[in-house]
Amino acid sequence: MFKKIFAILITLMFAQNGFANTLDKINSPQDLKKLSNKQMESLAQDIREGILNRVNKVGGHLGPDLGIVEATIAMHYVFNSPQDKFVFDVSHQTYPHKMLTGRKEAFTDPINHPEISGYSNPKESKHDHFILGHTSTSISLATGMAKARDIKGDKYNIIALIGDGSLSGGEAYEGLNNAAVLNSNFIIIVNDNEMSIAENQGGLYKNLRELRATKGQAQNNIFKALGYDYYYVEEGNNINELIKAFQKVKDTNKPTVVHIHTLKGKGYKPAEENKEMYHWQLAGFMDKKKTENKETYNSITTDYILKNKSIIAINPATPGSFNFTPDFRSKLGDRYVDVGIAEQHSVAYASGIATNGEKPILCVASSFIQRAYDQLSQDLALNNSPATILVYRAGITDTDMTHLGIFDIPLISNIPNIVYLSPTNKEEYLAMLDWSVNQTKYPVAIRVPTGDLVSTGIKDKTDYSILNKFKVIEKGDKVAIIAAGNFFSLGKDVKEELKKQGINATLINPCYLTGVDEKLLNELKQNHKLVITLEDGCLDGGFGEKISRFYSNSDIKVINFGAKKEFTDRIPLKELYQRYHLTKELITQDIMNNL
Amino acid sequence: MFKKIFAILITLMFAQNGFANTLDKINSPQDLKKLSNKQMESLAQDIREGILNRVNKVGGHLGPDLGIVEATIAMHYVFNSPQDKFVFDVSHQTYPHKMLTGRKEAFTDPINHPEISGYSNPKESKHDHFILGHTSTSISLATGMAKARDIKGDKYNIIALIGDGSLSGGEAYEGLNNAAVLNSNFIIIVNDNEMSIAENQGGLYKNLRELRATKGQAQNNIFKALGYDYYYVEEGNNINELIKAFQKVKDTNKPTVVHIHTLKGKGYKPAEENKEMYHWQLAGFMDKKKTENKETYNSITTDYILKNKSIIAINPATPGSFNFTPDFRSKLGDRYVDVGIAEQHSVAYASGIATNGEKPILCVASSFIQRAYDQLSQDLALNNSPATILVYRAGITDTDMTHLGIFDIPLISNIPNIVYLSPTNKEEYLAMLDWSVNQTKYPVAIRVPTGDLVSTGIKDKTDYSILNKFKVIEKGDKVAIIAAGNFFSLGKDVKEELKKQGINATLINPCYLTGVDEKLLNELKQNHKLVITLEDGCLDGGFGEKISRFYSNSDIKVINFGAKKEFTDRIPLKELYQRYHLTKELITQDIMNNL
Repeated sequence: MFKKIFAILITLMFAQNGFANTLDKINSPQDLKKLSNKQMESLAQDIREGILNRVNKVGGHLGPDLGIVEATIAMHYVFNSPQDKFVFDVSHQTYPHKMLTGRKEAFTDPINHPEISGYSNPKESKHDHFILGHTSTSISLATGMAKARDIKGDKYNIIALIGDGSLSGGEAYEGLNNAAVLNSNFIIIVNDNEMSIAENQGGLYKNLRELRATKGQAQNNIFKALGYDYYYVEEGNNINELIKAFQKVKDTNKPTVVHIHTLKGKGYKPAEENKEMYHWQLAGFMDKKKTENKETYNSITTDYILKNKSIIAINPATPGSFNFTPDFRSKLGDRYVDVGIAEQHSVAYASGIATNGEKPILCVASSFIQRAYDQLSQDLALNNSPATILVYRAGITDTDMTHLGIFDIPLISNIPNIVYLSPTNKEEYLAMLDWSVNQTKYPVAIRVPTGDLVSTGIKDKTDYSILNKFKVIEKGDKVAIIAAGNFFSLGKDVKEELKKQGINATLINPCYLTGVDEKLLNELKQNHKLVITLEDGCLDGGFGEKISRFYSNSDIKVINFGAKKEFTDRIPLKELYQRYHLTKELITQDIMNNL
Repeated sequence: MFKKIFAILITLMFAQNGFANTLDKINSPQDLKKLSNKQMESLAQDIREGILNRVNKVGGHLGPDLGIVEATIAMHYVFNSPQDKFVFDVSHQTYPHKMLTGRKEAFTDPINHPEISGYSNPKESKHDHFILGHTSTSISLATGMAKARDIKGDKYNIIALIGDGSLSGGEAYEGLNNAAVLNSNFIIIVNDNEMSIAENQGGLYKNLRELRATKGQAQNNIFKALGYDYYYVEEGNNINELIKAFQKVKDTNKPTVVHIHTLKGKGYKPAEENKEMYHWQLAGFMDKKKTENKETYNSITTDYILKNKSIIAINPATPGSFNFTPDFRSKLGDRYVDVGIAEQHSVAYASGIATNGEKPILCVASSFIQRAYDQLSQDLALNNSPATILVYRAGITDTDMTHLGIFDIPLISNIPNIVYLSPTNKEEYLAMLDWSVNQTKYPVAIRVPTGDLVSTGIKDKTDYSILNKFKVIEKGDKVAIIAAGNFFSLGKDVKEELKKQGINATLINPCYLTGVDEKLLNELKQNHKLVITLEDGCLDGGFGEKISRFYSNSDIKVINFGAKKEFTDRIPLKELYQRYHLTKELITQDIMNNL
């Protein structure tokens, strides 16, 4: 019922001007160039409809794409892609671009939805130049393209599009600084929708606000300070104004910033009104029911943080990923800090807080903690700063290849001094959190379990200061299963399967991903032939290899189970589990074949 | 003779004002506060003498420390360390600070030189708050300290010192952006000596130049744009002027930048005149003879680049590390790019160049490539951009713990798509370079060998497009030695040692660090019992573990030799080799014990 009303509303919203079929005529940017201004406005509505259709069907980025519709039309109207090159930051705002470059069916027709990804991809179109899904990269990548163009003596426009949110990332600034001294065409479109995923943080945003308030006339201007020619477009959702601005800078021979003020979520009221919630949406968001209020690893984390007044909770611009709701944030007050898209800073900041005696918990997704390797190593580990890092969304997933969560173990577990813990249930997770927050000797990372919450109901009283002490859950012989974190339950299943084969396997929860329990592993030699390791991540450089190395000159055989070193792109989980032999049946088979 | 003249000159230079013993009276910053201005000037001379003494004896940073003498005196005069906290960026300019905080003997008396490190270290003094050796971190770390201070309701000054060179790094900008919105005391001293290690690059530096030219009055001002209160001190080597400026901002309740204009190398003419050369110096620089003109891995690299007109050579601000002399740079013209201290940008930039059809070679030290993990993964590997990365200074070293070169294999070799090569001699290195530059399918990293150049004299005609094909150098049985890169010669030595034990070992040069030669490894099973791996890097997450994993469920035994996962601090190489069993004798012993 709710769904129907929505559908009618959307139809009305988009159909009222009678131009609902302009998109039909567009098969390439060339077709767009023939349109009148009015037709382009109609096209914008069609594109919006396509965005809503697709996101409601398969999930995806909503707000950023709705806001950039007019700018994308104007870009394709003024510039000549693919001779002129567009580089989209994060590329989560490429839906309009995709619709204008031969991929509209993936938006208008549900059958074609899965055919294209939610990000830029050169394999899909010659109008895309990079696979992109992490922020703050467009300017640097485009600067490289400009260098190659200039060396070859070619002439065309290179346009990097970047959102205001992405500008807080260090890579964006490194790019801005370097692009500023090009002696050639280079255009940066700053898409300022006044938002990162959540609110923007930092001095830069005060400056952008000042620039918006003065229609670009403010004396303080970070872009001019860096040496850019600067243009401001207040009506960033007005195709005509955008075309005028882009025509002005087209073929410029200087690094130039066009700062456009857009409305995130434009054209879809709920998204305009709640920009953060509609930045990204799951499939079915238009008809979704209230979510159940059940306990999750996210909810017990926020509860824990709220209860412990000593904690300062930090995150780099993705509060939604951790259930850091506006209510949660306001309850924490100045003990909540969003540093913007600035993972490097977030780690150093946490180290500074810990060094000065307070208790930071940094929350960050597996895919993004890799943006701060050097800070983990130098600012944190080398200083043994007792900060806590919660690594979310870690494990094998069916996501886009830019957002995989399988590299955090190779990344973190091979840095000295850091203790990386992998809890397997609620009580263990809370006990590890508690230990981490209250100790002062080590930087601790905790791999937050994914999936449904598992609870034993029994308080975990383990002393985690005894590092690398694995837990023997059930003693057996012949085969030992070392099953870490998310895959502990798989380990249990394998043990049950082995029973059917007459094998009473030992089941071990290693708890630590950063070291091995040498005493225990030596003891296993007495009555075990085979040790298997299970980890929900990349095998190369991972936890299992440490076990393999330990046993490598002994008679114990080892098999490591986990993900292959590869970038997988939207492969169903079931398929990946088959590929990597991560089902209880396949593992049991492999075990039997090796006994 | 040359040495004597220099010593006399220096004595004259420093002794002329008759205050040569002021430093003797300073045992803590408190003592400094009693000095007259004239005495402080004399103190500055004493400190300079200490710097020159030490660097000439044990090597170290010269230019940055000579330039910051007066500012350090003024900082300690005005502020009250350690209640007020100084955070030094890179901390390679802490020599004056160390001399003023109870560590002067490590500069004045050769016996004490080794006692302190060349970087900030809390274990040495309560006036140091972090172990630091990578750039661009001070503002972020200090922002964390400020957060903890504010949460606790404490009041004191927090001062981050950062050089103009370090400001090109993304982490510095992320910190600048976030610190700007603190509602409390926060002072950034920008030490502008108009230089990074070499010349500065980027739009920021145009702005700094403009600010210097206008004595801080220019309308474009990046610090003001970000919201900082801003003060300019033209005479950054004038103690009086500095004291006045610092007194003005002391106890401020706003984020504030004091931009001081200093002279790098101040007080030592050769360093003033050749700032790049004297940024860092080896022991004995005052009396060093002309270096021999022999071939090195650095020299064959620069020769290769010069000969191949298709290459664009990129480096992030450390041309000296690669022998990129001013002459080399000028010969390359616009095919040479120094991106400043901006490793993230350097990788994305290289990817952009490769994507657009030119041939980038990015040169970077092992210790610093880790500042760009996410860019290696996302901007480069995911896009399979055919850029070449030369990883210098990789391997176990006796350096300070902030500059270790043992983590690049765990870092790079576990990223999909990248091919990481480890040449063992000149001809192989050049062949790998040639292959990498001319192929268009993979991102390729090459671990530039360290130590003396080894030449076979025979052109290497290997086809490196057959990935992960190890080279069998000598066929034997029972024991196989897989010796990578720098440690290939150690592998040869072990083979010789084993001969004495009657063992004719197989010797293998793996060439690739990113995969295993499954066919060959399976063949070895036929007549080998034990495989050993040798790698000049950290074992955890490294190359050897891949071999251990491969053989883990077979009867072949494996021993991995390499470095332990630890931060070592100026430990002599010999000691480390003993510790890690990296001598031919110890390895042979381990082999015999395991047969």
